[in-house]
Amino acid sequence: MSQTIDTNRRVVLASRPVGAPTPDTFRLEREPIPSLEDGQVLLRTVYLSLDPYMRGRISDAPSYAAPVEIDGLMVGGTVCRVQESRHPEYAAGDWVLGFAGWQDYAVSDGKGLSKLDATKMQPSWALGILGMPGFTAYMGLTDIGQPKAGETIVVAAASGAVGSVVGQVAKELGCHVVGIAGGSEKCDYVVETLGFDACLDHKEDDLPERLAAACPDGIDVYFENVGGKVFDAVLPLLNPKARIPLCGLIANYNATELPPGPDRMSVLTGALLKKRIRMQGFIVFDDYGHRYGEFLEAVGPWVAQGKLHYREDVIDGLENAGEGLTGMLEGRNFGKLVVRVGPDELS
Amino acid sequence: MSQTIDTNRRVVLASRPVGAPTPDTFRLEREPIPSLEDGQVLLRTVYLSLDPYMRGRISDAPSYAAPVEIDGLMVGGTVCRVQESRHPEYAAGDWVLGFAGWQDYAVSDGKGLSKLDATKMQPSWALGILGMPGFTAYMGLTDIGQPKAGETIVVAAASGAVGSVVGQVAKELGCHVVGIAGGSEKCDYVVETLGFDACLDHKEDDLPERLAAACPDGIDVYFENVGGKVFDAVLPLLNPKARIPLCGLIANYNATELPPGPDRMSVLTGALLKKRIRMQGFIVFDDYGHRYGEFLEAVGPWVAQGKLHYREDVIDGLENAGEGLTGMLEGRNFGKLVVRVGPDELS
Repeated sequence: MSQTIDTNRRVVLASRPVGAPTPDTFRLEREPIPSLEDGQVLLRTVYLSLDPYMRGRISDAPSYAAPVEIDGLMVGGTVCRVQESRHPEYAAGDWVLGFAGWQDYAVSDGKGLSKLDATKMQPSWALGILGMPGFTAYMGLTDIGQPKAGETIVVAAASGAVGSVVGQVAKELGCHVVGIAGGSEKCDYVVETLGFDACLDHKEDDLPERLAAACPDGIDVYFENVGGKVFDAVLPLLNPKARIPLCGLIANYNATELPPGPDRMSVLTGALLKKRIRMQGFIVFDDYGHRYGEFLEAVGPWVAQGKLHYREDVIDGLENAGEGLTGMLEGRNFGKLVVRVGPDELS
Repeated sequence: MSQTIDTNRRVVLASRPVGAPTPDTFRLEREPIPSLEDGQVLLRTVYLSLDPYMRGRISDAPSYAAPVEIDGLMVGGTVCRVQESRHPEYAAGDWVLGFAGWQDYAVSDGKGLSKLDATKMQPSWALGILGMPGFTAYMGLTDIGQPKAGETIVVAAASGAVGSVVGQVAKELGCHVVGIAGGSEKCDYVVETLGFDACLDHKEDDLPERLAAACPDGIDVYFENVGGKVFDAVLPLLNPKARIPLCGLIANYNATELPPGPDRMSVLTGALLKKRIRMQGFIVFDDYGHRYGEFLEAVGPWVAQGKLHYREDVIDGLENAGEGLTGMLEGRNFGKLVVRVGPDELS
């Protein structure tokens, strides 16, 4: 089942899941590796990123991006090596960041590719702390959250690709940072390795009471990437003029119907009004693409100096990507989830 | 029952209403007019402003301001004349804007008063288009809404003190402006006099369909001061990157319990996420007090030139203020609601 030199394995969407994805959601296909024309490169996938937004792409509910079609290739960010080049700017062996999807090989005309310097960083980090998740964390926190030293920041999924960066950057900015994560192992990591002031296990009882105790001065910024019962616990603790950057609602993604009543929509709007709160959704490359360089300048040195910690959860093999996505939606990963699709060097 | 020279009539909160205010909510009392000390002025109320926020002040639910106490004087913005002055900066006969509450006479040390030039404008307008409601409209629209020429703006309570200014300023900025109001008389006024592009009667059926037809390019800014079924109709029509300044939710103020399910809180947060919407509550003097001069410079000339139209709904007599507030919460007023408490000149 591993990557070979003469066949392209590709994972397509077999059916749209109702609720959580199942083994029937995806199908692995094989095809010959396409041949190149002038101006093209052949990319071999080394790492595939798995991210929560993918749940939205396999649904046909209205969203910010077109859904993956049935029998269509699953989309995804990838770190690839150039296997063969007929493009003047690329040479065989180059490392690139792209969006080749869930497959071994892809043909590209170079558009949307960024070269990576594998001597300076672990290439897979371009899918995480130095890529979309890290950029999401940085822009949402600094541009929408606008934290000030001494303020209290709460971040859910605190050991994950986005949350871990949010909290560490907020600590660099002098904030009181409280994480929320699932299980004691993750919570220990968030406090002991990432340096958050506290981390609460949402699988234990009495989250609202424990969160109130961990935030004695209320909450000034809630970085929302989860929703559900974590948001319910946060809402009453928000301070006047609080900010809520909103980049994900993973707790809702597999939901097939709305929760029972009463209808609390007016509870949320009433809180936004009475507390003069700003809540804002964003999609980082759509809203902040022009500021990616600024992010790399700010965060790159912190990563290079070891100031920011980063943890990857690596799944081996393209054939296991679907199960990896399902597990992520249940919070089973621990750190940024990537699939190793092929080896660094293909012999 | 009219204003006299020797008695202070004052309206106090008799009981906290459950749902809509009733005749038992308020009580009119009489007391001698207080005497002055050095450094004080005696204010005689000419106009009292009635505003939706007052419903919140007679409730003891947590809010942004302390509630009025039982047996305490009802709060409210007023336009007064100085009846007697022992303050060096004020002379008898001066017109001032203040916050004297629901009463004929008040003693002030001058703090929080602003002198009004009655030769330049109708003094009561300081309670409306040139006061808190107009300022709310202007800052919410321009600072949070940030409308661009050609965008579509929807504003509810379009004939009211805030909505009428929102829509007219948006027209000055080159926007497509759709109002929503209760009844055909108000809707005609909003289109014919205020110059909105369209106005929909929320008392008629099929508001969602009619709103969609009036906003063929979707909605870029929804100025929210109503909530309820108007917001429900707006939500599906919001464009990506829409902005929702939120200054009121009058449809909810008398509610005694939440609506039945399902729980649509995640519908709202999901829309904010997928459409990358900014929703932000604000209270104009708390958040923008330092920009009041800028507002007067921008809007004052438009008012003076007759570019912005303004309509007052004047109730006669302090004893009718309570019923006026109840009517406003049901949408019975037509224009900015003020109470004429006493004559311009007291003979």
